[in-house]
Amino acid sequence: MVMPATPPIALRFLGFGEAASLFAKGLSGAGLAGLAAYDVAVQGGPAEALLRERAQASGTALLAGREGLADAAWVFAMVQPSVTEIAAREAAPHLAPGAFYVDFSSASPARKQAAAEAIAAVGAHYVDAGIIGSVPASGHKVAVVASGVKADILRTTFAPLGMDISVVGDTIGAAAGIKLIRSILAKGLEALYVEALVVAQRTCVTDAVLDSFCAFLDARDARATAALLVQSHVVHAARRADEVAMSRDMVVEAGVAPLMTDAIVELMRRSAASGVAERVGRRQPQSLEQALAALEQQLPDLRTGADIPSDDRSHP
Amino acid sequence: MVMPATPPIALRFLGFGEAASLFAKGLSGAGLAGLAAYDVAVQGGPAEALLRERAQASGTALLAGREGLADAAWVFAMVQPSVTEIAAREAAPHLAPGAFYVDFSSASPARKQAAAEAIAAVGAHYVDAGIIGSVPASGHKVAVVASGVKADILRTTFAPLGMDISVVGDTIGAAAGIKLIRSILAKGLEALYVEALVVAQRTCVTDAVLDSFCAFLDARDARATAALLVQSHVVHAARRADEVAMSRDMVVEAGVAPLMTDAIVELMRRSAASGVAERVGRRQPQSLEQALAALEQQLPDLRTGADIPSDDRSHP
Repeated sequence: MVMPATPPIALRFLGFGEAASLFAKGLSGAGLAGLAAYDVAVQGGPAEALLRERAQASGTALLAGREGLADAAWVFAMVQPSVTEIAAREAAPHLAPGAFYVDFSSASPARKQAAAEAIAAVGAHYVDAGIIGSVPASGHKVAVVASGVKADILRTTFAPLGMDISVVGDTIGAAAGIKLIRSILAKGLEALYVEALVVAQRTCVTDAVLDSFCAFLDARDARATAALLVQSHVVHAARRADEVAMSRDMVVEAGVAPLMTDAIVELMRRSAASGVAERVGRRQPQSLEQALAALEQQLPDLRTGADIPSDDRSHP
Repeated sequence: MVMPATPPIALRFLGFGEAASLFAKGLSGAGLAGLAAYDVAVQGGPAEALLRERAQASGTALLAGREGLADAAWVFAMVQPSVTEIAAREAAPHLAPGAFYVDFSSASPARKQAAAEAIAAVGAHYVDAGIIGSVPASGHKVAVVASGVKADILRTTFAPLGMDISVVGDTIGAAAGIKLIRSILAKGLEALYVEALVVAQRTCVTDAVLDSFCAFLDARDARATAALLVQSHVVHAARRADEVAMSRDMVVEAGVAPLMTDAIVELMRRSAASGVAERVGRRQPQSLEQALAALEQQLPDLRTGADIPSDDRSHP
């Protein structure tokens, strides 16, 4: 197969922190010339020196204002999630019609949808992008999920430069959601290990705990473990709440605040109180999909206030 | 290798709920005769019929009182963890000197130590045992961890009958601790999946989230993943707290109470506030052992009140 020659791409960064500068460095190393960036720090202040250093190190021109975005075919927005919407609204008037605005910020789906409206209003194309994994470790080759009707153009344009982009559908917010939910799982597992293993350290059983739990995880692939845990949760949440309450005693005896352990007890009690076990006739669902469908229907939806068991009203 | 013939073993159960009756069924199936049990339900009440049914099904004689424990060489205590100490204290006067009292209850190490004192006071031997895994699934062949100076005699006596007993040291409470800490990890992962995947269901990204997270877990063995997470936690907890705070927005937008997600944010903030990153010179520890040692030393010990950062005093 003959690869097409890489055409020049007018790429501008909006926000030029560590992640953007590593993307710029990697993309210029892959042959992309003429990079430029706008970052509010260019207007002075304590962060300006670092900004100029990063720009120089990655061969990126610094734009004096957002007007410099006018000639961009692509804008990679890499701002803090707290400013996702305002960044899009302030950039929008300066975008050329038909330009692509790729929002890499780690904001929630609702914020990304709001940002997308501002971009669409000026006739530019919004792509929702979520960075999965570590930019310091992988640079511009880090795994990215992207959603939106133009997400595939992002992929075909930047894959030849080494970017690893998976398109996950047309819906703005899908990529953001995948990134943020995955983060609960990965950082949640980290938090579980920290709480549990500090208790294990203080009681001198670290190796035995790790041996036992890791043997459980290594016994099957991760998706099968997830299915095993969630399917059995539907019918055994009440008993497991009592079991983890015993674990809580031990965490407290070891002098550790039971942050995660308390949350586990509470979540198990919420599932038990939801009546999901009764809904499935106290028979374990046969698939993860069935288990999740039962839980999703039975757990309270705090947006509507529907079906909230009275015990749970204290956790809005 | 010639296996020794199994000698008769005078085994009595103290507490005869589901787990004990499944042990009795399995052990009598393996050839152990003369089983008997004492359970407070024998004195009448709503649970008596079920007790008698279980005894009959497993070929176990029911004892009218604790006096029946006097001829036991082995007592398997399988009571609810809330009555671990009282069960041991009430049984102790009836035990023969030199009898083995194996405490399978899921109580904390401190409770097991208190129970052990009562048993040792009458010249009987206490073994701390923790059931790992599911008795309904595996019966008496379920994995058991055992600790105490006589734990190895438990193993050599019951292994020929099919029991799967791992000795984990001489310390009373070690087996209990392993069981209870492992439970935090296993049920914690279950709780994370429930919270994250209900949000994923409501936002239609379940498969993509599972694909991404499971690929991360399947990329290396579980112990390597634990090391990766805990070593990086030491230096990146502050940033990760901010990232999970973004995930929290999404959980709330999906109408789900962020029980686990809130706990993750709080735990990350506690680690950051502990100064552990500064303690290691902001360099990621080179091993899980080093990371845990740094965390264990730096996190507040609520038993002593030492080194509790002021932000954390609201979580006793």
